Amino acid sequence: MGEIVFVGLGLNDELGMSLHGVEMVRAASHVFLELYTSLLPSFSMKCFEEISGKKAVVVSREELEEKNGETILKAAEKAKVAFVVPGDPLIATTHIALRVQAEKRGIKTRIVHGASILSAVMGLSGLHNYKFGKSVTIPFPNETSAETPYETIAQNRKLGLHTLCLLDMRAEEKRYLTIHEALETLVQIEAKRKWRTITRKTLAVGVARAGSATPAVKADFVGSLRDYDFGAPPHTLVFPGELHFMEAEALVVLAGAPKELKEACR
Amino acid sequence: MGEIVFVGLGLNDELGMSLHGVEMVRAASHVFLELYTSLLPSFSMKCFEEISGKKAVVVSREELEEKNGETILKAAEKAKVAFVVPGDPLIATTHIALRVQAEKRGIKTRIVHGASILSAVMGLSGLHNYKFGKSVTIPFPNETSAETPYETIAQNRKLGLHTLCLLDMRAEEKRYLTIHEALETLVQIEAKRKWRTITRKTLAVGVARAGSATPAVKADFVGSLRDYDFGAPPHTLVFPGELHFMEAEALVVLAGAPKELKEACR
Repeated sequence: MGEIVFVGLGLNDELGMSLHGVEMVRAASHVFLELYTSLLPSFSMKCFEEISGKKAVVVSREELEEKNGETILKAAEKAKVAFVVPGDPLIATTHIALRVQAEKRGIKTRIVHGASILSAVMGLSGLHNYKFGKSVTIPFPNETSAETPYETIAQNRKLGLHTLCLLDMRAEEKRYLTIHEALETLVQIEAKRKWRTITRKTLAVGVARAGSATPAVKADFVGSLRDYDFGAPPHTLVFPGELHFMEAEALVVLAGAPKELKEACR
Repeated sequence: MGEIVFVGLGLNDELGMSLHGVEMVRAASHVFLELYTSLLPSFSMKCFEEISGKKAVVVSREELEEKNGETILKAAEKAKVAFVVPGDPLIATTHIALRVQAEKRGIKTRIVHGASILSAVMGLSGLHNYKFGKSVTIPFPNETSAETPYETIAQNRKLGLHTLCLLDMRAEEKRYLTIHEALETLVQIEAKRKWRTITRKTLAVGVARAGSATPAVKADFVGSLRDYDFGAPPHTLVFPGELHFMEAEALVVLAGAPKELKEACR
């Protein structure tokens, strides 16, 4: 029996991989690569193959979600397989399902972790880890309803907690929801629900291109933030709950938040 | 003016650093290393210095928390400094404070993210990211009270959410709270509070040595889990909320949870 090593690519490009990851990819007989669950804006297949010394097979959403990763499982029955995934490699439920399936067939699995947007957002914004509640995904407009994410943001706020909002993407169509679109979607639900969860005066923090040399991080009230130019994707959004005065200062200094924030949190 | 690059070491040892991180450390004039906020059980200073091609200065808790990292800030006024930190480098509030301080003095800062226990626990246990609520830290017994973490676990459970419990540590004394001790602490609070939050029949998941070649992951009811031998630190604990049937299956297959769990979640 073989083995599947799940290797995290981290953020932005192939250099986000850890030295452990490189070791594992080099030692593998087959390298599979998944690039549709997160966007790595500066990823280069050429560089990745140079680093790993191997040809990599890119697996599609269809292969993983409809065929349950059968190609990967088959290869792993006899050999050591590296399955390389953006971020930390076992956040998407499909990948967890593949790992469970492998173990059930007696194929050993191992994880080489990578940097994830889940923790990156904390460092980029200066918001404190233990203040985050449940996270949500904001869908494309006119598709799935964003009522549930809206309710979660409201619920977290009531508990004084921050909400991390991942923004939906469809890599196949090169469509990545922007902070502007996500805010529009939420403002429209606000107009119907009127819970005063996301008004013009609600503070939000946008993060673009986490892990790159040019991340954009901007905190402002929704009325202004919706017009801020965050540049190229991927984008992420946070709705802060109650702010510790150190968090307020961090948002002013690191994310250009309005200075009145600091006064309000003294 | 110089620059501080915050470099994440990831989990377990120096090979958790990303290729970007290695690049940054090699390009820095000064390398500072912090090893007290998380335990990297297999870290070797010799290997780290070989990889980075530099002597690294280990900074103490005192230097960072009492002197506010003045040594690092002074060095960064004139040169490029790498500040290397376990995990993702800006989770501890002290490090965020250092970044804010640097920016206020006109010192540029940059982050090279690393793998964090916050996302690693999800991949190791198979629990879903968007089901986690606020996380907590369980303190050493007879020091800070664990009433607040206990209440947070109860609150998350009421919302159907999982709670990630980081366990306290004191690197200077080589003391790392174990899963056994953390459970004892919480069971004692249960005995007083009687909220039925943490009884013998409550499901919990223990994770030890995330990111190593030999992580221990075990899900069981508290009555049995408190006697499970997780081996060497670092330890982490999760109290699941409501389980999706895929999560229940993952806990059975990946974490040896009692099989009745799967039946209960159908």
